[in-house]
Amino acid sequence: MNLNDKNILMTDTVALGEDGRSIVIIDQTKLPGEAVLLTLRERRDIFTAIKTLQVRGAPAIGVTAAFALYLAAAEIADSGRYETCCEGFLGELAEARDYYASSRPTAVNLFWALGKIYDLAASYAGRELVATVKALRAEAAAIRDGDVASSRAIGEYGLTLLRDGDGILTHCNAGQLATVRYGTALAPIHVGREKGMNFRVYCDETRPLLQGARLSASELVANGVDTTVICDNMASQVMKNGWIQVVITGADRIAANGDSCNKIGTSGVAILAKHYGIPFYIAAPLSTIDRATPNGDGIVIEQRKPDEVSHMWYKQPMTPEGAKIFNPAFDVTPAELITAIITEKGIIYPPFAEGISAAFGA
Amino acid sequence: MNLNDKNILMTDTVALGEDGRSIVIIDQTKLPGEAVLLTLRERRDIFTAIKTLQVRGAPAIGVTAAFALYLAAAEIADSGRYETCCEGFLGELAEARDYYASSRPTAVNLFWALGKIYDLAASYAGRELVATVKALRAEAAAIRDGDVASSRAIGEYGLTLLRDGDGILTHCNAGQLATVRYGTALAPIHVGREKGMNFRVYCDETRPLLQGARLSASELVANGVDTTVICDNMASQVMKNGWIQVVITGADRIAANGDSCNKIGTSGVAILAKHYGIPFYIAAPLSTIDRATPNGDGIVIEQRKPDEVSHMWYKQPMTPEGAKIFNPAFDVTPAELITAIITEKGIIYPPFAEGISAAFGA
Repeated sequence: MNLNDKNILMTDTVALGEDGRSIVIIDQTKLPGEAVLLTLRERRDIFTAIKTLQVRGAPAIGVTAAFALYLAAAEIADSGRYETCCEGFLGELAEARDYYASSRPTAVNLFWALGKIYDLAASYAGRELVATVKALRAEAAAIRDGDVASSRAIGEYGLTLLRDGDGILTHCNAGQLATVRYGTALAPIHVGREKGMNFRVYCDETRPLLQGARLSASELVANGVDTTVICDNMASQVMKNGWIQVVITGADRIAANGDSCNKIGTSGVAILAKHYGIPFYIAAPLSTIDRATPNGDGIVIEQRKPDEVSHMWYKQPMTPEGAKIFNPAFDVTPAELITAIITEKGIIYPPFAEGISAAFGA
Repeated sequence: MNLNDKNILMTDTVALGEDGRSIVIIDQTKLPGEAVLLTLRERRDIFTAIKTLQVRGAPAIGVTAAFALYLAAAEIADSGRYETCCEGFLGELAEARDYYASSRPTAVNLFWALGKIYDLAASYAGRELVATVKALRAEAAAIRDGDVASSRAIGEYGLTLLRDGDGILTHCNAGQLATVRYGTALAPIHVGREKGMNFRVYCDETRPLLQGARLSASELVANGVDTTVICDNMASQVMKNGWIQVVITGADRIAANGDSCNKIGTSGVAILAKHYGIPFYIAAPLSTIDRATPNGDGIVIEQRKPDEVSHMWYKQPMTPEGAKIFNPAFDVTPAELITAIITEKGIIYPPFAEGISAAFGA
């Protein structure tokens, strides 16, 4: 299988296997070289897939975890040790939950999805195991369906901001590969393609981990989109050339005032977009908005290991001994640089504090 | 020899060997891993050093070429075939000149230096060969001395814009490694170090060729400067953190109105500096100013090979098949984003058209 088999990259990033006893994922560590589907059955393999970023992106990890805990429940039930959703069953399920929760300790969607599946099982206490497992499978599928519906809605709303033929700049990967289908920032482009529209998409390569070059470019090329990879420092030049009509990125966390935390470099792209008079959009589900955080000052930026900058990917170290390295994973784009936030419930315009309150119906 | 031997990186980037029959250069292709001095005697080795970027940076290439053509003259004289600076001698020297000129076809300083040495030889027509060769050696040394004096003066003028302890952001390598000593953008830092000052310098790694990570960081660390490497897309964050008081970059070509062509990404850094209210300086000798080019629109941007972005340095391709790559080598920073231009004759402030005319005495 290779990248020319476009169908692979256009399947769901995460799916339950046809046998109902496995998870099928696109192995993102093989991109951009190969598009490989992995069928995961053993707990250890699923754990490793999350830990080693074979599956990544908060929504995709959440869906994987939901399926994983359902599979654990089915496996325990298959053992025949329990007839009902008893203490013994729930104890074993809690073990599986805690095991998966330790795969990526900072992934909120992971904990959320595992909690959702486990809590449903707990609410079945005393009932037949067959019914319990069936309910867990339905719940995991519902989490998956919810992610697909949310991404699709973001795509539809976002598409209203685009015209056929537009040049679009994006940063990092907030695409289908970070969700189950469509993505967030790239959802309007994928949905537009379904409707026969064509865009010219420029992917910042997104140092140091190169998610733009490796992942966004892979899924866009697979979907037949006119795709150009640039180094991060070339964004100013492509904007100056008049090639960019719209910038869209995702967000990892949005404060109540609209300040948006996203992959390092996003704030720089927003400043360039303002300079060149290009609209800058954030695309993210409402679940990304953290209303308890009043503004971006309250968001702590994760610092990552220096060797991602100096060694990773390379044949040899690319910085001298003795040089320090600063490697923040994210930055915060202030609300005043954001033209609008595209969500699954509609497009939120400034002033964001009010728009966000309205979107949450309060 | 390794990088911890700081003395190597603080020797001249290009020097005439003590025997007067060789050129000694710092091998820049070995950085940042090793600091190695290469002694070049054969024409083919000198040619290869220029072609393969063992020596790079317009001023350093010019000085190398001047020494190279003097060495060729000395070698022809040593052969004993000629007694005087006759047609035969000049013919052989012209061959050597044309050979070196073909090493990097777009390097203006290369042609300029070769022309300067050859023309001096031609002016000695009919005179004794010993005197001719002696004059060529003196002329090559004068070209070297002129470069050192120019860099030193840029450093002194630039230093008047800095305070002890300042955080300085630079892009690419306009340092000692691009000249003989001191550099241009990094000259104020090196000169300040001589005077016992300390700075915190942030080097954009400068994709795709990583001159900031590999070269600027190497020479700064060797000179005992507090040096931090960042990915290009992290510049916004370090500025926001309040860590940067001054941005200084070099320039490859400056138009008559001050528009400055420099390594790709420089214009983006200038836009960020403006956004954060940080002064943005260009440091370059007057020879960089092309008064025949009225503004940046007249500067054609060299496009380089896609594989510098997708393959070079890497263990595997980092973009998918089917993705296009845009790889401009330079961009133009408009004059209105430049606080001042630091030259060997002083600091030019806006309006640049007038300041540049005044600097040229017209």
